[in-house]
Amino acid sequence: MNYFPLNAKTIPGYLKQLDNLSSVLIFDSLTIEEVGDGNVNYVYRITSKPNNTSVILKQAVPYLRVAGTEWPLDRNRIEFEARALRLYGSIVPDLVPKLYHVDTSMSVIVMQCLSNHIVLRRGMIAGIEYPRISDHLSTFLAETLFRTSSFCMSSHDKRSLMHNFNMNMDLCKLSEDLIFSFPLMKSDSNYTNPHLKEHIDRLYRDAMFRTNFAWFKYKFMNCTDALLHGDLHTGSIMVNEQETYVIDPEFAFFGPFGFDVGKLLGNFLLASISHYYRSVESKYRSWLMAAGLETVRSFFTKFDTLWAMHLEQETAMFHRGYLRSAERFIFQERFRRSLIQDITGFAGCTIARRILGIAGVADIREVADLTERARLEGIALELARILLNNYASVCTLEDLESLVASFFDGVTSVFRMRTEVSSLY
Amino acid sequence: MNYFPLNAKTIPGYLKQLDNLSSVLIFDSLTIEEVGDGNVNYVYRITSKPNNTSVILKQAVPYLRVAGTEWPLDRNRIEFEARALRLYGSIVPDLVPKLYHVDTSMSVIVMQCLSNHIVLRRGMIAGIEYPRISDHLSTFLAETLFRTSSFCMSSHDKRSLMHNFNMNMDLCKLSEDLIFSFPLMKSDSNYTNPHLKEHIDRLYRDAMFRTNFAWFKYKFMNCTDALLHGDLHTGSIMVNEQETYVIDPEFAFFGPFGFDVGKLLGNFLLASISHYYRSVESKYRSWLMAAGLETVRSFFTKFDTLWAMHLEQETAMFHRGYLRSAERFIFQERFRRSLIQDITGFAGCTIARRILGIAGVADIREVADLTERARLEGIALELARILLNNYASVCTLEDLESLVASFFDGVTSVFRMRTEVSSLY
Repeated sequence: MNYFPLNAKTIPGYLKQLDNLSSVLIFDSLTIEEVGDGNVNYVYRITSKPNNTSVILKQAVPYLRVAGTEWPLDRNRIEFEARALRLYGSIVPDLVPKLYHVDTSMSVIVMQCLSNHIVLRRGMIAGIEYPRISDHLSTFLAETLFRTSSFCMSSHDKRSLMHNFNMNMDLCKLSEDLIFSFPLMKSDSNYTNPHLKEHIDRLYRDAMFRTNFAWFKYKFMNCTDALLHGDLHTGSIMVNEQETYVIDPEFAFFGPFGFDVGKLLGNFLLASISHYYRSVESKYRSWLMAAGLETVRSFFTKFDTLWAMHLEQETAMFHRGYLRSAERFIFQERFRRSLIQDITGFAGCTIARRILGIAGVADIREVADLTERARLEGIALELARILLNNYASVCTLEDLESLVASFFDGVTSVFRMRTEVSSLY
Repeated sequence: MNYFPLNAKTIPGYLKQLDNLSSVLIFDSLTIEEVGDGNVNYVYRITSKPNNTSVILKQAVPYLRVAGTEWPLDRNRIEFEARALRLYGSIVPDLVPKLYHVDTSMSVIVMQCLSNHIVLRRGMIAGIEYPRISDHLSTFLAETLFRTSSFCMSSHDKRSLMHNFNMNMDLCKLSEDLIFSFPLMKSDSNYTNPHLKEHIDRLYRDAMFRTNFAWFKYKFMNCTDALLHGDLHTGSIMVNEQETYVIDPEFAFFGPFGFDVGKLLGNFLLASISHYYRSVESKYRSWLMAAGLETVRSFFTKFDTLWAMHLEQETAMFHRGYLRSAERFIFQERFRRSLIQDITGFAGCTIARRILGIAGVADIREVADLTERARLEGIALELARILLNNYASVCTLEDLESLVASFFDGVTSVFRMRTEVSSLY
């Protein structure tokens, strides 16, 4: 079929000719809503009334949706998303939506509708605690990263898998620019808030911060540890109290282990910072910080467990008898240290770019009062600076935890002081 | 054409149907000799008597030549060699043979015959000084590595180029196994010399050496800095006093910057060690050591010059205005330190595997007296141990130079002492 962009009118006709959807949908009475709040593609929820069943249809257009036709973007991104969803479906089937249909020529995928779930970021803005979230996300991270790495795959298999994602060029370039380049330089796409100007100017003079930031850009572009989701923020996760689904892996590519984990941690911490404004009490703010760190901690535990299970198998990295157990211990310790440093650095980059760059997080950007928003943004930038300028001395998980916790303690006590002072008057 | 293995009888008929060779060869009177001394493919020199012109024909067989049909190896390796030769031809045309013909179905390439040149390793065994070798090889290294990296290419172009080499899987796996795995474990393919046993046993107990070795294996497999030659040893280089040609890039793939440089340095140092036996005087031995280090030094100078030339261009890593000059200086210093460490480590791996593994270097393996050979092998293993166990404290080129020089000084003084002692009797 020749490509054409779908809309509410043309979708029923398009769907009818798909055999594999006739068991899911009753085609006679479909309701179609555009539900995409993302920046990249069009997303429709299609509901068939009689059996009250819904599916999600996602179509890529040949440009970046949020920027319009002026910003071309290869439609093949939907293929990479489909490949990643299929692979994730085989690794962590309970944590990704089921895929019903992939149409390369139309750049369309049809998948499970998560109607009893909301976007995690929205839940966090609303102050909802998700008791199982760290457990689910750490499983997703450990399973997907370990199983697509040279600690688990054979050399041939890993290289073949890499080949299937290597040409996701447009979206890799988008990440390089929007995460790692533009936020550090003059760019029309960058965010401005007059109340934040002084803070940004000060940060822009920090040569150590900027050099470390660029160093992580280099790592992002030149490491191929494992298949990354590539865009694992709290807007790419659908939740309810019981379940967690990771969606939107269209940025999937082979990159450094620390990126997905660091990005996710950064998003938890941004959400936590937003609750200096959103919450009266500190309870939910603390829960967010703790849940982010707990996700990292559980990730390491699960990654180590997977590693232990595979030590006797032939993999690209380890053969039977390659290292003795004491040597493997040294190797693993060194790997862990290097990984926790990368997670720290990538978390810093994520937080900074979400404040400085075009793609802010709703948790903070939706704060209408610019002064209040700048206060949150200033805190976030300071956290980013502290993470990036100290990443090299973070050697253990405990180092990361105490760096983050002491930062939040400091911010909280300033806030408490303010409140106490104002209550005197 | 359906694939069949060529031989001296079938080559003339095969060549006659190639239009683009009729300007080079006179087909009526061809002399054909098998000249390959490599382990992987078949190589023929084809000379047409009347005009005294020669070409080289190289054909891949579907197995590893040295091991026989029991060790299958994809014939597509010749395509990767052709791709690399073409690319190198556009970057450093004077340093690689001209390519006349590529035949994918027959896994054949036909190229310039370097009849006035010998294999560098042979020249080094014979004790010949090549006054321009460091200049030529450092140019090859700097140009090919810089120009295929994200410091020079755009993000899209680099990713596309990577895609053209990513599936060179069989040869990548061969390197992983033969360089980085088997030498560190029990393997039938490993070398044995009874006089070396104690030395090897001692080295095998060195947990730091073994862990660092494995760490470099990990880097080799998971970095994609630039297009590597992948097998840049002194047997892959043809020379005379004036000219230098790099041949045999069939292992080409995207890997870490330090690998080609470190591998080449390791081969110079192995040659140098062999002259504790081959030379009466220390002059040539010192020249070899100095030429290896000079190649690394010039590589850095030329790499930096290329970098300086490209700082104002848009590349994957740097945009105009991305970093200020002081910040770029910090970044480059850090990059250099990391690279010199990698070169040190990879040189150590190369030296160790050439002693412990199946593919020894003729410089040492051809020493017939097993006791004398073991003496050289012991020196080489000790150098490998020193490079790998100290790589992390090598921060500058000077650190590397003094580490290597002081090692050779130590070995030389032991030798002098022996000579003096024996001259007393």
